Amino acid sequence: MTRSKSSRRGAEMQLHSRHLLGIEGLTPEEINLILDTADSFAEISQREIKKVPTLRGQTVINLFFEPSTRTRTSFEIAEKRLSADSLNFSAGTSSVVKGETLLDTARNLEAMNPDFIVMRHAMPGAPHFLSRVCRSSIVNAGDGAHEHPTQALLDAYTIRQKKGRIAGLKVVIVGDILHSRVVRSNLFLLAKLGADVTVVGPATLMPPGIERLGARVSYDLDAAVEGADVVMMLRIQLERQGKGYFPSVREYFSLFGLTEQRVKRAASDVIIMHPGPINRGVEIASSVADGPYSVILNQVTNGIAVRMAVLYLLAGGGASEEAA
Amino acid sequence: MTRSKSSRRGAEMQLHSRHLLGIEGLTPEEINLILDTADSFAEISQREIKKVPTLRGQTVINLFFEPSTRTRTSFEIAEKRLSADSLNFSAGTSSVVKGETLLDTARNLEAMNPDFIVMRHAMPGAPHFLSRVCRSSIVNAGDGAHEHPTQALLDAYTIRQKKGRIAGLKVVIVGDILHSRVVRSNLFLLAKLGADVTVVGPATLMPPGIERLGARVSYDLDAAVEGADVVMMLRIQLERQGKGYFPSVREYFSLFGLTEQRVKRAASDVIIMHPGPINRGVEIASSVADGPYSVILNQVTNGIAVRMAVLYLLAGGGASEEAA
Amino acid sequence: MTRSKSSRRGAEMQLHSRHLLGIEGLTPEEINLILDTADSFAEISQREIKKVPTLRGQTVINLFFEPSTRTRTSFEIAEKRLSADSLNFSAGTSSVVKGETLLDTARNLEAMNPDFIVMRHAMPGAPHFLSRVCRSSIVNAGDGAHEHPTQALLDAYTIRQKKGRIAGLKVVIVGDILHSRVVRSNLFLLAKLGADVTVVGPATLMPPGIERLGARVSYDLDAAVEGADVVMMLRIQLERQGKGYFPSVREYFSLFGLTEQRVKRAASDVIIMHPGPINRGVEIASSVADGPYSVILNQVTNGIAVRMAVLYLLAGGGASEEAA
Repeated sequence: MTRSKSSRRGAEMQLHSRHLLGIEGLTPEEINLILDTADSFAEISQREIKKVPTLRGQTVINLFFEPSTRTRTSFEIAEKRLSADSLNFSAGTSSVVKGETLLDTARNLEAMNPDFIVMRHAMPGAPHFLSRVCRSSIVNAGDGAHEHPTQALLDAYTIRQKKGRIAGLKVVIVGDILHSRVVRSNLFLLAKLGADVTVVGPATLMPPGIERLGARVSYDLDAAVEGADVVMMLRIQLERQGKGYFPSVREYFSLFGLTEQRVKRAASDVIIMHPGPINRGVEIASSVADGPYSVILNQVTNGIAVRMAVLYLLAGGGASEEAA
Repeated sequence: MTRSKSSRRGAEMQLHSRHLLGIEGLTPEEINLILDTADSFAEISQREIKKVPTLRGQTVINLFFEPSTRTRTSFEIAEKRLSADSLNFSAGTSSVVKGETLLDTARNLEAMNPDFIVMRHAMPGAPHFLSRVCRSSIVNAGDGAHEHPTQALLDAYTIRQKKGRIAGLKVVIVGDILHSRVVRSNLFLLAKLGADVTVVGPATLMPPGIERLGARVSYDLDAAVEGADVVMMLRIQLERQGKGYFPSVREYFSLFGLTEQRVKRAASDVIIMHPGPINRGVEIASSVADGPYSVILNQVTNGIAVRMAVLYLLAGGGASEEAA
Repeated sequence: MTRSKSSRRGAEMQLHSRHLLGIEGLTPEEINLILDTADSFAEISQREIKKVPTLRGQTVINLFFEPSTRTRTSFEIAEKRLSADSLNFSAGTSSVVKGETLLDTARNLEAMNPDFIVMRHAMPGAPHFLSRVCRSSIVNAGDGAHEHPTQALLDAYTIRQKKGRIAGLKVVIVGDILHSRVVRSNLFLLAKLGADVTVVGPATLMPPGIERLGARVSYDLDAAVEGADVVMMLRIQLERQGKGYFPSVREYFSLFGLTEQRVKRAASDVIIMHPGPINRGVEIASSVADGPYSVILNQVTNGIAVRMAVLYLLAGGGASEEAA
């Protein structure tokens, strides 16, 4: 874990910020640095002893104001495999119940000298706010409908793993574009790395002006999926049914569900992605989710490596080899 | 922790499965192997430094879909004393709330490369299902009214510790036989190791055909307890009162509660067991629970050693000496 | 961590009990020993590797029957920085729901051989009760309105850090004196170390006979704060509003809220304390909480060091230098 000071590329091969708040603030070089670093961490989770001393004696607080399975667990595993001391702090059992402001909660945690605060919050910008008042490194684990940068990074890692590149790929993102932080982070990332992106969904779930993030807009999944290299399905919140967004699950599936028929229109080596948890028969057919083109579980596996890489780099690690 | 390949008994001294799903699938030799191995782990919890590096760098997910105190805590302590990275994943704060299927939850956890998933679930067979789709070792920590194998193993360990043997002992199990996974696992185990078992309870709480698991059935505690070497009391779920199972707690206690009078009918060195948590004055008199024949707290202590042994053996450890 | 047996002051420089149940049972020398020891632990949390092996292989159960943010997190961080195996056991997910008595819960935990049980409970005396039935060291993390000894210790540490001494200081404690365990622990401590203490609050929130704990009583904050070296504000439970304790938050603030005007009456180097979480505009003006005299966040930081010191000393550590 010693940084090779004499390395030719030395200083520029680090992240310029000690926070990861979103993809929007990263350069393409930084994104590639994270993906390259994740490569060296991926192997650790395949070992019998899945642990390196990288963050030994560092304290990470997982500050989750919204429930989460995979993201919190993925971070917690990443932290433990880096030997950090990892604490969970969830809103239900906390002072938040007693009406403490986010600022006061943050300052109080900060006073305990954590090295990292990994934060999920319903309010867009909450982690950015924390980063202005905290000395700790803040990692955004999802802020409202704004960003979810480690999800986009693990998506990019998975695409690169399967396709060898991101530039020039035809990527289709399908579903509730309006409420999705996953889409926004992916749009930033895919634009920076040169993919050709189309977003597809019902007009009611399509935010106006989304083209400005570098995506084409389509309301016709059959047309959009034609020749796609990557199809990324989004989770539909079933609570939205009957609230004017879409009339029924059945109608949603018939228009925007990913079926085997639709997969056949894509490139012959298409990969199917989903950030999970999936709704079988709502946005994706079971046979597609479990089929040969699906890389949904690879995404989960890669999430650990990408989060290990992010924590390592934010702690000041450089692009040297890892974990002997 | 190195396996002695040259040992005379070599290969057969390991578990044949990498899962512990129930007692039903174990041979008597495997049961004895676990109990013998627990002996060498019991001492670790008496040390000042209660920790061995056996499972260092291995990830254990405690996946509890039902609330539990002693079982989850006992596993978590066992895991930490083996130096594993231990994570708790409980249903309340998870994707399960969002309607994800058990299969998808399992596959997603699996994709994070845990070495073990310790699972409690209300559905009989849930861990068996997981074991067919996961590469991780699955440990059943209770599946509905089916099995709770580590409880039966710690019970057997406690009996052996106090009596020196299990074969030929007269064991009486008393209470809600119908709904109890503890009974089923114990019946399998005690039959395999040659104990002479009688189950006692109200006819409403006695499953038809229970004799096929190798037990005599009695509805008369006073008669059944005569000369018993081991009396194992079960917890009565107070919610069952007035639902046709038994008319009142008072009547239940008068017929099936373990009192000092009834203990006097047993062997003079009888041991009194209970998987906890106990209902004082419902199924057991306080004076008996706290009395000289009670080994209830020994069971709790032994639970740690037995679970350490199970995890060690499932990880491929053999019957060599432990933890120097 | 080796105790210097040949040290001149040798044996007397340890705590006489293996439990920390309250300040009431400590001698002034023991209080000073804890504060001195905290000094040597404070530095650890400033390092990059915030971890010492002091409690390696020891098991700490955090047994919280009431929700808590800062106290539980502070203990958990302290435990992890001491390398202990730390487990959280909260009432909501436990056997307590099934009606198990506190005694049985305690005995069951005890049977798992934890070295420490850190306990918060709504019932005054609950930790004292545990200490009589457990071999583990019990640390009171708040018992009803009785004591919260580590809070008083971190308060004292903070006062000493800022003022260099405690004896002779003029300390004013303001708010809900009736329901506060923080006040009781602080009154014991400040009396033992020779401070001059005044408690201030509405008559409805002032317990009769509080003078016997060594404090003057005042109902006039403007007068009481005159020349104060330390002003300690207490949290007002907003639920008490309109229940006869005080008519409204607005009126409470006008009579007992700490404003900039009132701070001007205090000594020119006054420090403002609060155990948190603060209610801005209820018991303290935002500008005062965030102002130059506030040491509220120092209290949080010092909580870690004080709790590390307490655990170290209860484990039998002596007054030697720490953690090289």
